[in-house]
Amino acid sequence: MKAVFHRPLAVFRAVFVRRMLVTMSGSVMIFGMAAVVAAPFQALQPLPGQPPIPRDNPMSRAKVALGQQLFFDPRLSVTGTHSCNTCHNVMAGGEDGRAVSIGVNGKVGTRGAPTVWNAAFSTVLYRDGRAVSLEDQVKTHLLGATEMGMPSEQAVVTRIAAIPGYVSQFARVFGGESARESRANAVSYTNIAKAIAAYERTLITPDSPYDRYLRGDKKAISAQAKRGLKEFEEVQCLSCHFWVNLAGPVPGLAFQMGEGFYELFPNYTGSSYDQQYQLADDLGRYNVTGIESDRRMWRVMSLRNVAVTAPYFHNGTVKTLDEAVRVMGKTQLNKALTDQQVQDITAFLNTLTGKFPEQKMPRLPATPNGSVVDPAAP
Amino acid sequence: MKAVFHRPLAVFRAVFVRRMLVTMSGSVMIFGMAAVVAAPFQALQPLPGQPPIPRDNPMSRAKVALGQQLFFDPRLSVTGTHSCNTCHNVMAGGEDGRAVSIGVNGKVGTRGAPTVWNAAFSTVLYRDGRAVSLEDQVKTHLLGATEMGMPSEQAVVTRIAAIPGYVSQFARVFGGESARESRANAVSYTNIAKAIAAYERTLITPDSPYDRYLRGDKKAISAQAKRGLKEFEEVQCLSCHFWVNLAGPVPGLAFQMGEGFYELFPNYTGSSYDQQYQLADDLGRYNVTGIESDRRMWRVMSLRNVAVTAPYFHNGTVKTLDEAVRVMGKTQLNKALTDQQVQDITAFLNTLTGKFPEQKMPRLPATPNGSVVDPAAP
Repeated sequence: MKAVFHRPLAVFRAVFVRRMLVTMSGSVMIFGMAAVVAAPFQALQPLPGQPPIPRDNPMSRAKVALGQQLFFDPRLSVTGTHSCNTCHNVMAGGEDGRAVSIGVNGKVGTRGAPTVWNAAFSTVLYRDGRAVSLEDQVKTHLLGATEMGMPSEQAVVTRIAAIPGYVSQFARVFGGESARESRANAVSYTNIAKAIAAYERTLITPDSPYDRYLRGDKKAISAQAKRGLKEFEEVQCLSCHFWVNLAGPVPGLAFQMGEGFYELFPNYTGSSYDQQYQLADDLGRYNVTGIESDRRMWRVMSLRNVAVTAPYFHNGTVKTLDEAVRVMGKTQLNKALTDQQVQDITAFLNTLTGKFPEQKMPRLPATPNGSVVDPAAP
Repeated sequence: MKAVFHRPLAVFRAVFVRRMLVTMSGSVMIFGMAAVVAAPFQALQPLPGQPPIPRDNPMSRAKVALGQQLFFDPRLSVTGTHSCNTCHNVMAGGEDGRAVSIGVNGKVGTRGAPTVWNAAFSTVLYRDGRAVSLEDQVKTHLLGATEMGMPSEQAVVTRIAAIPGYVSQFARVFGGESARESRANAVSYTNIAKAIAAYERTLITPDSPYDRYLRGDKKAISAQAKRGLKEFEEVQCLSCHFWVNLAGPVPGLAFQMGEGFYELFPNYTGSSYDQQYQLADDLGRYNVTGIESDRRMWRVMSLRNVAVTAPYFHNGTVKTLDEAVRVMGKTQLNKALTDQQVQDITAFLNTLTGKFPEQKMPRLPATPNGSVVDPAAP
């Protein structure tokens, strides 16, 4: 189920209907998809209001509220300085505006943080697809040395279990969720990940000008953006960046969760960009699997909100969106796009910035009279 | 106006009325104080709903909204990783729960971040009083190497002025505020500080159980907390920790802004705590002024929300509130408090946790197609 897929849209269309039949009996539901299945395949789709919800982590208002608190809680990092929001800033574009992110103790990573907005529509997480679900991604992230730096799963659980306001919420949210779980052991590593993932599934940005355009509002995007959309299709950006998230299949649509939609990057090596932006230095998915054919394979990233998530590419070496378009044209499609094409496509990409939902600021439960972060922490 | 004051409450009471007369013609207003002036001095006072507002930085809804965005914006740090909220977390107790704070690039400071909640009632800022207003504190903080690390005031202004959503707000908020300011140059270092300070003046936590008790609700605090309050007065904690913020004078009440209320700490040296908690290593205000009598002088810190702002003291070496009470009894009053006294006073201090106002999460204005944080930033 974790095979590498690397195919243009034309091939994808051919297998689409067959795979959808598999999906219908799969373990992941997607809202509002029933009508789509019967229709001919349309590569451009507006963003649904809700993402797929896994059966083993149903949504509830209380769970989302708990997940939001955890998402913003820096006590989930070893130093008590970094929350999920530090690198995936949902007050902004869902990332940190940096080339590569900085974790605890000033430790610099090697890749840029992807946006958390609409991440719930991804079949795999991380740029190299090494997490098979949002829950899995959270679990890995908390222990990453250049991320939250927690020494062990148990250390995370111990810290959260020392905060009375969390203990009561975990008992309420997870205590009755499955027969195996009692209220007493509701604070678990899995449940911490589930709560955060549930919150992340609310981080959806619908109603971009592009979505309104697709739904029939012809004035929602400019004439230049319309030209850009046409170019986007004609030069075949759409071969990979299609469907609701402009990132290929979503869970339940042909692909299951955990099954990644990858592309070679750079696809055409040898351009001056390789060296200028160090595009081929990081081997991407190969570092995860060790499989030769995975060299420089990367997850096809969503283009939603791409205008507000600079800088660009896995190593953040490209500072502006227009340059990113130019580089993609050359490295992926072997086309030297004209300045006009670049400007038009950039104008189109600017229509993909959606509406960020209003949120209440969470309150983080206190530990009266003492801190759970060891003052002598590294 | 920046003289050092170091006197017990009894002396303070004697000068209170005279100094209030000075204050009434001063440049800082305080709400709801008129009735208090005529009454005999009462050291225990509930927290007013609003703090003093300086005449040169009037409050407005738009200014506070702008200030909240800036407070949460990590682009005010050189690396784009640290916002004011990183160390002064208003989702929690207004600080970071750490012994000492960590600024950009993992640089560890030497002191703990004081809470920003109710900081607007302080006559000076920083533990050593080196900032004479909230505005002044913001200005210093952005340039601190172990804080936000910005290289210069101009670098801050340049970055904010590159964000269209800020430029329009600054023009609207500050464009007409004084005759000297045009809309075009409204993004200035001073105005950035003013907006953040205005937001900080909304960070007030009224209606703690203690406040309700003072206002006549006799059941608002427990019998043990009442005993603790009595002990708090009798052992003379109140000598310094009095008035609305339990931190001595507030702006306009006897003291003007910029005039600090300091105490020697440790007052009685020679106890085992000096070494155990390295209490005398940092010379406090002396490091600012170089004046001999300022050695180990520290601003009297507010006790409001003290139960949720562990660990304790300038270097955060004391992990729990009860131990902090024990240490204070010995070092400040030369009294070995009994376990019962410590427990009672701790119970009282737990009644000082106020109501944290609900806030909307701000949205940080974007810079479409590019990031203002240099990908090559240190």
